[in-house]
Amino acid sequence: MLRLNPVGYYRFVQASQFESSYAGGEANVAVSLANYGMSAAFVTKVPEHEIGQCAVNAMRQYGVDTTYMYRGGSRLGVYYAEKGASQRPSKVIYDRAGSSITTAKPEEFQWDEIFRDADWFHFTGITPALGGDLPKICLDACKAAKKRGLTVSCDLNYRKKLWSREDAGRVMAELMPYVDVCISNEEDAKDVFNIEAANNNVEGGNLNRQGYISVAQQLQARFGTKMVAITLRESLSANDNNWGAMLYCDGQAYFSPTYRIHIVDRVGGGDSFGAGLIYGVLEEKAPQDAINFATAASCLKHTIEHDVNLVTVEEVNALVAGNSTGRVQR
Amino acid sequence: MLRLNPVGYYRFVQASQFESSYAGGEANVAVSLANYGMSAAFVTKVPEHEIGQCAVNAMRQYGVDTTYMYRGGSRLGVYYAEKGASQRPSKVIYDRAGSSITTAKPEEFQWDEIFRDADWFHFTGITPALGGDLPKICLDACKAAKKRGLTVSCDLNYRKKLWSREDAGRVMAELMPYVDVCISNEEDAKDVFNIEAANNNVEGGNLNRQGYISVAQQLQARFGTKMVAITLRESLSANDNNWGAMLYCDGQAYFSPTYRIHIVDRVGGGDSFGAGLIYGVLEEKAPQDAINFATAASCLKHTIEHDVNLVTVEEVNALVAGNSTGRVQR
Amino acid sequence: MLRLNPVGYYRFVQASQFESSYAGGEANVAVSLANYGMSAAFVTKVPEHEIGQCAVNAMRQYGVDTTYMYRGGSRLGVYYAEKGASQRPSKVIYDRAGSSITTAKPEEFQWDEIFRDADWFHFTGITPALGGDLPKICLDACKAAKKRGLTVSCDLNYRKKLWSREDAGRVMAELMPYVDVCISNEEDAKDVFNIEAANNNVEGGNLNRQGYISVAQQLQARFGTKMVAITLRESLSANDNNWGAMLYCDGQAYFSPTYRIHIVDRVGGGDSFGAGLIYGVLEEKAPQDAINFATAASCLKHTIEHDVNLVTVEEVNALVAGNSTGRVQR
Amino acid sequence: MLRLNPVGYYRFVQASQFESSYAGGEANVAVSLANYGMSAAFVTKVPEHEIGQCAVNAMRQYGVDTTYMYRGGSRLGVYYAEKGASQRPSKVIYDRAGSSITTAKPEEFQWDEIFRDADWFHFTGITPALGGDLPKICLDACKAAKKRGLTVSCDLNYRKKLWSREDAGRVMAELMPYVDVCISNEEDAKDVFNIEAANNNVEGGNLNRQGYISVAQQLQARFGTKMVAITLRESLSANDNNWGAMLYCDGQAYFSPTYRIHIVDRVGGGDSFGAGLIYGVLEEKAPQDAINFATAASCLKHTIEHDVNLVTVEEVNALVAGNSTGRVQR
Amino acid sequence: MLRLNPVGYYRFVQASQFESSYAGGEANVAVSLANYGMSAAFVTKVPEHEIGQCAVNAMRQYGVDTTYMYRGGSRLGVYYAEKGASQRPSKVIYDRAGSSITTAKPEEFQWDEIFRDADWFHFTGITPALGGDLPKICLDACKAAKKRGLTVSCDLNYRKKLWSREDAGRVMAELMPYVDVCISNEEDAKDVFNIEAANNNVEGGNLNRQGYISVAQQLQARFGTKMVAITLRESLSANDNNWGAMLYCDGQAYFSPTYRIHIVDRVGGGDSFGAGLIYGVLEEKAPQDAINFATAASCLKHTIEHDVNLVTVEEVNALVAGNSTGRVQR
Amino acid sequence: MLRLNPVGYYRFVQASQFESSYAGGEANVAVSLANYGMSAAFVTKVPEHEIGQCAVNAMRQYGVDTTYMYRGGSRLGVYYAEKGASQRPSKVIYDRAGSSITTAKPEEFQWDEIFRDADWFHFTGITPALGGDLPKICLDACKAAKKRGLTVSCDLNYRKKLWSREDAGRVMAELMPYVDVCISNEEDAKDVFNIEAANNNVEGGNLNRQGYISVAQQLQARFGTKMVAITLRESLSANDNNWGAMLYCDGQAYFSPTYRIHIVDRVGGGDSFGAGLIYGVLEEKAPQDAINFATAASCLKHTIEHDVNLVTVEEVNALVAGNSTGRVQR
Repeated sequence: MLRLNPVGYYRFVQASQFESSYAGGEANVAVSLANYGMSAAFVTKVPEHEIGQCAVNAMRQYGVDTTYMYRGGSRLGVYYAEKGASQRPSKVIYDRAGSSITTAKPEEFQWDEIFRDADWFHFTGITPALGGDLPKICLDACKAAKKRGLTVSCDLNYRKKLWSREDAGRVMAELMPYVDVCISNEEDAKDVFNIEAANNNVEGGNLNRQGYISVAQQLQARFGTKMVAITLRESLSANDNNWGAMLYCDGQAYFSPTYRIHIVDRVGGGDSFGAGLIYGVLEEKAPQDAINFATAASCLKHTIEHDVNLVTVEEVNALVAGNSTGRVQR
Repeated sequence: MLRLNPVGYYRFVQASQFESSYAGGEANVAVSLANYGMSAAFVTKVPEHEIGQCAVNAMRQYGVDTTYMYRGGSRLGVYYAEKGASQRPSKVIYDRAGSSITTAKPEEFQWDEIFRDADWFHFTGITPALGGDLPKICLDACKAAKKRGLTVSCDLNYRKKLWSREDAGRVMAELMPYVDVCISNEEDAKDVFNIEAANNNVEGGNLNRQGYISVAQQLQARFGTKMVAITLRESLSANDNNWGAMLYCDGQAYFSPTYRIHIVDRVGGGDSFGAGLIYGVLEEKAPQDAINFATAASCLKHTIEHDVNLVTVEEVNALVAGNSTGRVQR
Repeated sequence: MLRLNPVGYYRFVQASQFESSYAGGEANVAVSLANYGMSAAFVTKVPEHEIGQCAVNAMRQYGVDTTYMYRGGSRLGVYYAEKGASQRPSKVIYDRAGSSITTAKPEEFQWDEIFRDADWFHFTGITPALGGDLPKICLDACKAAKKRGLTVSCDLNYRKKLWSREDAGRVMAELMPYVDVCISNEEDAKDVFNIEAANNNVEGGNLNRQGYISVAQQLQARFGTKMVAITLRESLSANDNNWGAMLYCDGQAYFSPTYRIHIVDRVGGGDSFGAGLIYGVLEEKAPQDAINFATAASCLKHTIEHDVNLVTVEEVNALVAGNSTGRVQR
Repeated sequence: MLRLNPVGYYRFVQASQFESSYAGGEANVAVSLANYGMSAAFVTKVPEHEIGQCAVNAMRQYGVDTTYMYRGGSRLGVYYAEKGASQRPSKVIYDRAGSSITTAKPEEFQWDEIFRDADWFHFTGITPALGGDLPKICLDACKAAKKRGLTVSCDLNYRKKLWSREDAGRVMAELMPYVDVCISNEEDAKDVFNIEAANNNVEGGNLNRQGYISVAQQLQARFGTKMVAITLRESLSANDNNWGAMLYCDGQAYFSPTYRIHIVDRVGGGDSFGAGLIYGVLEEKAPQDAINFATAASCLKHTIEHDVNLVTVEEVNALVAGNSTGRVQR
Repeated sequence: MLRLNPVGYYRFVQASQFESSYAGGEANVAVSLANYGMSAAFVTKVPEHEIGQCAVNAMRQYGVDTTYMYRGGSRLGVYYAEKGASQRPSKVIYDRAGSSITTAKPEEFQWDEIFRDADWFHFTGITPALGGDLPKICLDACKAAKKRGLTVSCDLNYRKKLWSREDAGRVMAELMPYVDVCISNEEDAKDVFNIEAANNNVEGGNLNRQGYISVAQQLQARFGTKMVAITLRESLSANDNNWGAMLYCDGQAYFSPTYRIHIVDRVGGGDSFGAGLIYGVLEEKAPQDAINFATAASCLKHTIEHDVNLVTVEEVNALVAGNSTGRVQR
Repeated sequence: MLRLNPVGYYRFVQASQFESSYAGGEANVAVSLANYGMSAAFVTKVPEHEIGQCAVNAMRQYGVDTTYMYRGGSRLGVYYAEKGASQRPSKVIYDRAGSSITTAKPEEFQWDEIFRDADWFHFTGITPALGGDLPKICLDACKAAKKRGLTVSCDLNYRKKLWSREDAGRVMAELMPYVDVCISNEEDAKDVFNIEAANNNVEGGNLNRQGYISVAQQLQARFGTKMVAITLRESLSANDNNWGAMLYCDGQAYFSPTYRIHIVDRVGGGDSFGAGLIYGVLEEKAPQDAINFATAASCLKHTIEHDVNLVTVEEVNALVAGNSTGRVQR
């Protein structure tokens, strides 16, 4: 997906140019994992023309395997992003109807080949929400992944402009049984599955640890999910957020520290969390270490322009270790 | 007026380019009103050359009626703006001597035609301060406006580099009897009319509600002004301000909430307040709703680059309704 | 339509930002006419979101009446433009499937109201090519225009990626009977109506005056078109073109001078010609003067970035009068 | 003077930012001489504020002595420059009424001190044209310069928007007797002194060697000028010019080669010629060598953005020596 | 190598920012080949820090295999490039002393592994010129390549600031026996091996076909080179060059067409020729087709900013087929 | 030294351009002093090519005397700077091995001439750390300075990537006896001389006044330093720091106020402090006034892009006087 954003804090109506970058839920996770030195491939479909090629190049630049970025269809999805400040919220306008991936057919994806040397399959709830055959394609992928023994993770990522709560609930419920690691933010579980954390005021940001544990337990109970991770964002303003997360597994909840973040670009925060968590689990970190890594990773994402989390394992580990003072490194 | 500012936080002496935009007290109000869906015209005079045309185009872009931007004279006023940060204040250098508007003659303005379908006339104290025949032109406008039954509003906007306190006091006192709605900040009433809010420390920002009420009452007593609005700025640093306002009418004071703002561009804050207030009154909002709308509107202005307040009624209403967390809108 | 182009001569795959502007065949004509001081309105449909608003603002900026830019639908069409140089051609990638205008319905357009004070209706062959109900909408407009006595002009503007020669021929043949002034380049008449200028080598640029006359006569014979204008481009390289035009009316051919142009941006050249011709005819210039004005106007367009021809009548007249030396004007 | 120009080939009405640089006839000469390793001081008056400081810094950056850039007055003159292309001419809009230098008083300039270690005094016809006491100030400077034995040079540089031909002729005639080296382009001598080169078609660019000699002889005859240099510009388009010059001294005319120039920025071309000539004379080059140096220097100026000629003696000499192929220097 | 160039035609002394890209003789060839769909790997050494990573990413972006971009050493070489115009030549300042590759040791390169699936090895004369162990490393590579049956190509690329003619001649003479395809420009053969094309005036650009054949024959006679390709540049100005080439093989000379090029960026022209030739030979094109492809490819490079030739096989073929008119492709 | 930094908050791997400026410990001090109206010269060696010239121009621009910026050697040192945000630290990559200054020889510096009219000599610990003959050159300078009665100041500025603690301790111990005013941050004294402030947690920023006094006393006891100034930085995040300082002289400690700073660019903070202190001492301010001036000056530096502190004496004095609210100055 092509991301177009005005420079700095310009509003859309002030822009005479847009910064361009290439992003998307799964793409962002792939880049972050590649930055951690993991072998990561991005599976999608983009048009054959030069704008499609730009998307391929953007992935290659950061070391993502683009073998399975199929070419075809007529357009690359676009999203317009306007950066908020203080009391003015950021705005995102999606323009992805008719994009190449939404017109892809199940038979175009040779999952057995794609998954040949893979250990993990990650997808987000945005992909089936795009409609067409994408729910079926996701289901095929999940089945093939499980058959080959991959770990499957899913970030629920509910987008109300893409589908209704009912559709989301129905489709995602078909996919969840294949999911080992489920990632959700404060609202997704409710929007998609009507699973609710009692007494939480999302807007105001009063967090309630017990409520999150309850959400995780309900997800686990309903779908047999091994690990549930929930990100906890407290939005103080468009510039300042508190950010933390919980990992629930083996009957126990692990809470990360909470970071007070002065935001550079908040988009992609959840994806960077997913990548951090996948890295942590693949590296067989203890649950507390994994959630700490994932949260620190996504904390750093908020300080980076555009969607993708361009940090190294060393940088995340330094923050995990408590080095949060931002002193110049010479 | 052409506004030239270095990019970002560059100081003047570092600039090798300037962002250009077109602004001014009344122009900013007109654009904001047009953004709210109101019919707004801007009355001024700009040179016939291309830089004058740029000013016309900038107004048209946001839907302002430019029929009465007369063309002639030799130059467009310029102001240079440098954005401050933390303890370093923003700086504004005006260069408007000899601009087209300052050489305009009273007979150039056909107020009866200009006001034909108008409900409201707004001006600021900067305009008569520019000298030449502008005090007379303002007076003509005020008289014509009253004759046709328009509501007249005035933002005192004292600029000490343009005229002395004595001149300001004398000229503005002639205009004030025509003014229905007077807008002032913490210092204007004192600078122009020697009307003072007791016990207020403007620099330090200790606000004193009773003092502001007293200022409003004195203005009302002296000039018969129906509504007096006073904006209350507490400057914590060049980046962070507290911002609120009071509306005094019908013998009662209405205080808006106070917003803690992380500033993107503070210039035009007062003008956006004026536009918000005019909108509120024209829409016949209750006084508390009107002052809340105006203050929320101007709060949002501080998050927008350049002078003009590019927000919609919906965006202001969302903030009035308490949505100040800056969460991404997708 | 949102135009996105990399800065300068960057190729798409090098771009990390795009310049944004708003353009389209009819939009370009409207802006140019507004620049000539004519009253011009642009009729289209754009989405309600901010990117749609940007398109409205872009038209307003140059004084185009945007009353009939209806709001609705889900996306604004996009086109990506890469500037060629020397032997490397410019490239244009269209992404307008599903744009708001392509989903518009005939009943949304109140042509009687739209044409109330209008003298002229202009459209291009691109609009019906976009499909959906647009051929019908164009036909409605043509009929309403003729009924109200407007002059109708059409730029054939065949786009092979939008429709086949057969479809174009069929649809345009329905519309042509309403057209008073037909504009075509060297290839359009052939592509759309299989009307061919004998012995012309378009790529090589060998122009054949008699051939062009023959094309005009055939168009006139077939559709009863009062005026036929044909633009003659000889592409020497992506940087250098020869440019001229012929106007055929009243049984006589009028050839403009040919300009050797060092190109800044060639896109919109044809539209600027159309606007120049409409201006000339509306101003009741003699045919030779009209074609000279139109050709000089479009010559100047090639020296201006982006699609729209930002020149004044005085500037065109200076070139018509032979001032082509480019000496600095102080 | 602050120069503001849109980026690249953007027209004024397209600009959302301006490149800023600091320039002016005499300033440009001073920078060029400093680049040649000469000691050069710029005498003027600029405001005390930061924009005035920017002008000082711009001169210092290139090694110009700014001791005599007096501070005071209220504004720095501005000029807006739009770059032409092909048949579209460049445009310059001056905005210097009321600038600090135009309000300077004769007694502010201590010419004896200013000229203490100087060998040469250069001024242009623009300075007295700015009015106020500037004609008197120029006359004072000329007298003081002659008294101390400096060589005096003057570039006639007639600007029709600044004064009438009559005023220019009267004032310049007072100054010319002090001038040893007079620089003029094809039109200045006619505009200022009604001295005409017979049979020259300036617009078309047909050059007539004998005519130029005649102009030089007439100037010499009337004012006793030792050297007269005339620049010969043939404007083929805004992008392409032919450029040459003649030096007339000791009863003989020396013609430089003519350069066909593909222009980057043409403004300052004459000033760079003046600096080259001053350098040549100060270095006691033979007349043919001096005119060749001056012309090559100004040829190179046309390839450089903004007003000032940022080339070294070595670079000019390489072109004088015939190295005009533009091969990469590694 | 990090390339830093001022924006547009700015001179170094005007730059307040530099465009950054990553380039180098062999790197440019690798990118171009990857663009043609070939599998290309770049072998070098870059520092471990982020600037080294940028170089890796730049290669990956275009699909180059970066497995053998070893990490270590302390700095990435830098070169500063200033774009010339008209009579002002482009300037390149190299700063690569002490760069990581110049401190590499022969034992760091496992040529057998590097060449495992390779068909071709290309290097330029710049690499051994950098000194240290690089002559030895090149020799090792040549030997390993020949042992494994790879075709070896070398672009002589003499850089006088890096080594003397004597050193170049001695070192290159050791390497040439391994070279199957030798690429040279008009001057390299003379500078390195004192092999001269009689009667050629390189600066003036008078080309002499027989002379070039003679150079090729001498190279072939001395080193047994199978193919010799010579590029023929006629520098008309910094903006305009004529460009052609000759391929000599099997006792016959094949001359490409000559292109008159209006230059965007001339750096990397030779490298793009090398890549085109390698592609042609690998694709088993006939000699005339191969030289035509290589020359057309490098012609297009001159129209592209920065060093690398971002064109596809289809684009080159279109030019080979004679489509040089630069008409817009929609 | 050339500083290259990505625009805004971009990371290195995202940059397609770098802002360029010219900086360095002593250079930054010189510029700041020149801004205060002091006569300041910068002594160094830079290459003869244009990039070296850029460094000279950058100093001249701000009024620094560049007579003793010797020309020669092969490269200008480079440093790459990436701006951190929130928990992500800023990063600096130095690339100065082999720079011209590191290859300078003691005999190139004529200290007696350099110091002819000087009152003060300032250097930093970075210079001897660069190796080669620089320790000897610094020693020569110190001796010459003391002989001529200059005050000598040194900012310890330990850089662990340049030399070991042992080497630093040995070399600096030779230089310190000549130093009258020693400037150190919280860590330098420990790193270089193993002099430690007990109980201070530098990372966390818990400051301990008594500890700093003890460090100053130890430095004084060991080297006889008249004045010791210690800057106290508490790094809350990459965006927010607390900043204060202590001056110890005449047996007494003077603490400045502590400023909470919202950072624009933190690099050069220490150098701006040094310049402020030198100014204060040269102006014979009382110790408390001197340390207040130095601290306020460096507070303001943090609000300015790039290394150098572009503030005036008036601006610093305003902050010293308590005006820290950042209100707009009109």
